[in-house]
Parts: sequence; C-alpha cells; structure tokens
Amino acid sequence: MPGLKGRAAVAGVASTRFGEHWDSDSYDLLAQACRGAVADAGLSMDEIEAGWVGIAAPFTGTGGAMLADAVRMFGKPITRVENFCATGMDAFRNACFAVAAGVYDVALACGVEKLRDQGASGLPAVSRPDPVLERPAAPALFALAATRSFSEYGWDEHDLAEVAVKNHANGAKHPLAHLRSEITVEQALAAPPVAEPLKRFDCSAISDGAAAVVVTRPEVARGLNHHDALVTVQACAFAVTTAHPHFAPGVQWVGFPATQKAAAMAYEEAGISNPLEEIDVVECHDCFTITELLNLQDLGFCETGTAARFTRDGHTRADGELPVNPSGGLKCFGHPIGATGCRMIYEITSQLQGRAAGVQVADSRIGLAHNLGGPGSVGAITILARED
Amino acid sequence: MPGLKGRAAVAGVASTRFGEHWDSDSYDLLAQACRGAVADAGLSMDEIEAGWVGIAAPFTGTGGAMLADAVRMFGKPITRVENFCATGMDAFRNACFAVAAGVYDVALACGVEKLRDQGASGLPAVSRPDPVLERPAAPALFALAATRSFSEYGWDEHDLAEVAVKNHANGAKHPLAHLRSEITVEQALAAPPVAEPLKRFDCSAISDGAAAVVVTRPEVARGLNHHDALVTVQACAFAVTTAHPHFAPGVQWVGFPATQKAAAMAYEEAGISNPLEEIDVVECHDCFTITELLNLQDLGFCETGTAARFTRDGHTRADGELPVNPSGGLKCFGHPIGATGCRMIYEITSQLQGRAAGVQVADSRIGLAHNLGGPGSVGAITILARED
Repeated sequence: MPGLKGRAAVAGVASTRFGEHWDSDSYDLLAQACRGAVADAGLSMDEIEAGWVGIAAPFTGTGGAMLADAVRMFGKPITRVENFCATGMDAFRNACFAVAAGVYDVALACGVEKLRDQGASGLPAVSRPDPVLERPAAPALFALAATRSFSEYGWDEHDLAEVAVKNHANGAKHPLAHLRSEITVEQALAAPPVAEPLKRFDCSAISDGAAAVVVTRPEVARGLNHHDALVTVQACAFAVTTAHPHFAPGVQWVGFPATQKAAAMAYEEAGISNPLEEIDVVECHDCFTITELLNLQDLGFCETGTAARFTRDGHTRADGELPVNPSGGLKCFGHPIGATGCRMIYEITSQLQGRAAGVQVADSRIGLAHNLGGPGSVGAITILARED
Repeated sequence: MPGLKGRAAVAGVASTRFGEHWDSDSYDLLAQACRGAVADAGLSMDEIEAGWVGIAAPFTGTGGAMLADAVRMFGKPITRVENFCATGMDAFRNACFAVAAGVYDVALACGVEKLRDQGASGLPAVSRPDPVLERPAAPALFALAATRSFSEYGWDEHDLAEVAVKNHANGAKHPLAHLRSEITVEQALAAPPVAEPLKRFDCSAISDGAAAVVVTRPEVARGLNHHDALVTVQACAFAVTTAHPHFAPGVQWVGFPATQKAAAMAYEEAGISNPLEEIDVVECHDCFTITELLNLQDLGFCETGTAARFTRDGHTRADGELPVNPSGGLKCFGHPIGATGCRMIYEITSQLQGRAAGVQVADSRIGLAHNLGGPGSVGAITILARED
C-alpha cells in the first residue's frame, strides 16, 4: 500500500519561543504559532481548510474549538489529537492523511501546551489515576533506563553529561529555546540529583509554547513561498505499545520497542536502508539525556551499546556526521508536550531549507524527527526531504 | 476536491450495552466493543492495521495506548481523538481519511467513556477551568435554548415531552440501551425540574459504554461479512465554531450554526439536495429534548419554527416519514461521550443493513448520524448509504 511518501508537503512552519510565558495563555501561544506558519507559507488564515490541534493536558485546553477561538477560524473542521508526548506529531500525521486523501488542499497542524502555570511540571495532572496500575513519574521512569543501561552497556554519568553539554551548546544559540546557556561536563556532573542517576542537567525543560505546520499537497506547495526549497513528507510512522511497559515481563528497559518498530516502518515507507548514511539531521526525543542515547540505537544510527561512544566521539554534534538536536532538543529548546512534535517539524524543515534560526547544519537534504510518547508507549517518526 | 463519498466503507460495527458498568473499566468496555466490531466484519484483531480511539474525559483514559492495552494490539499506530461530544465521530472521520488516502486497508475507530464512577455526571471534570470565561453546565446551557425557543417559536414543555416519549418508546425496545422504559407525556410533564424548563425526562442518560467501527476501502469490504449489504461513507463533515457561543453577540440560541454549516458541507459532499426526501433514518444528538427539535431544523428536515409540529405529527417516530433516533438516542440509549459518535455509526449501519437490534425502520438506504459537541461548538455529520 502507498504510504505518505511524497504525497504531502510542509508549506510553512513556525514556533513560539518556548519557556515561561506568564503573560500569555494557550490561545495566545497557539495564535502566534499558527499565524506564523500560515504567513510563512504565504497564505492567509482564510485559506486554511481544516485544522488539527495537539494538546496533551486538559488544563491547556480541550476540543477543536481551542484552535477555532485562538485564530478566529470558525465553521471549519478541527480535530484535537492527544497521544502523550507524541501529541503534536500525531496532529501532523492526521493532517497529512487528509491532505494525501485529497480531501483538503491546505491543512493546519499545530500543538500547544501551557505547563508552567501548573507548578514545577504539571505532569501529574496529565496522567490519569489508573484504576489498576500506578505509573512512576517521568524522571523516576527514565532513571530506571539509565541504571539498567549503565549495568548493561558500561555507560556512566559522564556519558549522559556529554549529551547535556552538546544540547546546551546548541540550545544556547537558538533564539526560541527555553534554556540558553552553555554548560560543561563538570557542571553537569556536579548538578543536584533528580532521580539517581539523573541529575538536573539530564532532564528536559518544562515549558510553555506552541508550534504549527501548514500541510499541503506538494503541487500546492510548489506555488507557495518556499517553492524553491520544497520539503515533502517521506514517512510518518507511529507504533504504539502498552502504557505499562515497566510491568511487562521481559522488557529490558535499555531501549524502546515502540521506537524500534516505528523506525522499521518509517524506513520502509521512506525507502531508507542505511539511516546513518542517508539521514542528514535529526531531532529526537531527549526528554532525558539517557533517552537520546537509547534513541540513537533504537533509530538504527549505531549498534546496541555504542551510543555513548558515538556521542563522545562527536558524531552527534552540529558539525558531526549526524547532527542530533541542533535546536537544543527537548533538553534545552523545551518541551510543551502538545507542541513538541510540530516544533520538531519546524526545526527539521528550517534545517533542510537552510534557514534554521539557531545552529544551521550543513548540506542537509533528509531529516528525521522522533517522539517517544508516554512511558515508552508511543514511537513516532517523521522523515522529511528537501526535493528540489 | 474529492470528499470521502464512496471512498470508505463500514465493514463491521458493535456497541456495548450503555448504562452502569460498575464491574467493568474503560479497557473492558473498549475491548468488548472492538472485538465485537472486528468479529462483525469477519476479521481478526491481527488484521487491523491502525486505530483511532475517541475519549473525551481524561479520567476515562489518555493516549493511543489505551486501545493498545485494551485489545492487546501492540506495535501499530493508534491515535486518540477528543472533540467534545463529537469525539467518537471524529475518531471515525480520521480513520476514514487514512483509509481513503490508501495508507491502510483496514482501520478501527472506536470510542469509550466511563462516566458513572465520577458521580452524577462527571461532566465538570471534562471541562477545563477556563482562564477567561466560565461555561454553564450542560443542562443550564440547553435550558437557555429551550427558553428562547419557547419565546421565539411558541413551543412549550409539551413539545419537549413529545420528543422524550418517542425516544423512550424506541429505547425501551433496544437491548443495549441504558434507559429501557416507556413514558407518557403526563409523566414527562410531572417530572422534577433540572434546569427550567428542562425536566428529568428532557435530559439524556449519563452512561458508561463503548462502541467500535471497522473502516475499510469499499473493495475490501466487498470481501468481508456484510458484502451483500455494503455500507459506504457518503460524507463526513465537521464544522467547529467558538467554545463560547453563549457570549457571542448576535447568537440567538435557537439553533446551532455549527450544525447548520456541517449540514451544508455534508449535503454537498454526499450530493443531497432534499434531505427530508433522500434521507431515510437519522440518529441525532438529543442530549436534551430541545436539542433534537433544533437539530431537525438545523439539519434541514423542516422549516425554522416547525420542528415541534413535525414531531407532534409523528413524522420522527420509527414508523414515520423520517425516523429519528430509533435507537432511543442519547436520551435513552445513553451518552458515554467518547463512544456516542461510533454508537451512532453502529446504529445507522445496522438500520441500513436491516439488522437493528432494537426498533428496525423500514426500507432505509441512506442514513445520517449527527453530533453536537461542546456548547454548540462542533457540528458533526456522517452520511452512510447502503450500496448494493
């Protein structure tokens, strides 16, 4: 069956600054991102035919009317999507399906989250009280992965710190990033513990923010602003597993089956056989530093157990063989949950078009965005290519 | 542009009993509905390629993993959709897009809600605390519509009671309905007030339940169980307006612009010029009796101001010119929010195939399902046709 390859294009992108927005609500952030993406495409809001809005937490907003009210787009179809941390990317995915079906010429995918108002993280309110099983809070959950990876692969806290240092170096240069300071390995290692062995700089920022993407058929995008740097969808693959993997027998917790499955699906859809050679730039889900290391393996960029060495050798730096999170990642750009997937599409598109607002990686033609949603439950991968 | 007309088919449907399910959780209900729909199609769960699950309230569940865990469908793409009371129908709509795009041959759309555990309604927990505007609770909101309609059209409480009596007569005969008792006009008029002029029998049931629909391309459905009674999608139209229409200047509150807009879109997509003549059976969003009356007008089945007379004259009875809510409707079948849209698809499909579990209407070839989501914010319409 045909996938999405070459059947949808990214015609415009925008992101708000991620961080603390005490003077803006969800509507304000969504409006800023959506108006930005529509203007970036060279369109007006009236030309948008349908919307998909990603919102993870009910305190941010509910229903398609959230987007309608934010941008005064009334009388059109709008869907709210929620899929843990892959929420924004799933909004994008569903917009792509409708466009690929030919039902709409021009669709808007966006995501927003307002987390700072909810205290330190707001995350407890995102998870429902499960009637059967309790879920540990995110840092405790990923601390299990770090502990087990240390034991299994011989990695240590210094390996994690290398990821943090790289992503801080990138994030410091992005004008829209939440955490904009460089750090050293020594600072990372000396930081206070959050959930051993994860320390402060191993954890991503908890942010407010919104991002948006205009999705069109490629023929339509060829008549819009970025016709000379057309970015098309090569794959958008999702794999969902249990919400309770930490209770599943046999789960080693040194990698995420959801990402591994999604990667296999995405590479098949895009026709990619050697990810490391063929993919030029990556935004991946570094909710914690350990997650980025495990992602590199799950995404097939290096052999099992070698991600720490791969990182220490500088391959994932902005000037390395495989730039990973040139935006600063969730780690420094921030992580307003519903917005993150669309923010990654914004970053990868900007990179491919040579107009990244922060660090610009050289000569990138194919980029990959990856989300890991829930407690390892959702693997979500979008592959974009510059076609001209 | 092509709509969905004839590009997706309903290959299987199922619904749980709606009502009080103290001994089942969301997973149980979802599993029962989904396994039922898949079996109804003559498929196995392994053959489902992707899922869409509609859940309105976070206390029911979050994320696509809810469905994965319920039916042990791991490693496949699953999206959670939320769109107020149109949640389940929007899950169906997005599944149709992916199937029409040719990305999947066989998709599962479903919805679930567990409301009874939350006390009388659970609804306050569905609505977020809006930073700017408060929303009145549902009965108070629709009481405004009744009050204004009485003034504008000369309707009265007896007109509302006629709707309740009809829907109770239908619901009493459906083995899966929540409220299964007939009532008289006298009983309806003597019932205790909830929000004047709405009384107890003017309000829909607050229920637990789940429903599911297998969506395929029509060619695929022709090789499955119901090949001799193929039901295809003729339209699936959504129109979203503000979440705060009760504050919008000029809103008369005697009809819902979202439904009017969605109806225009749906009829255009399906190629229907005379709804009353061409449509044979309707499931519409009777969250309150007044809503059914206003829907009849918004959907173009009768002139403005005439819905009460149209109902009193018996046209909407199961043996009338236009059977409306032969299932008993939200009023008696019940209203587990995320499930309702899929439950309507279940009922319309069953009616068109001549295998309704409750009241079977005669000679129906084209059916319409309608949801009104939020405070009049979302108008959602699906039109199905039996093609053989």
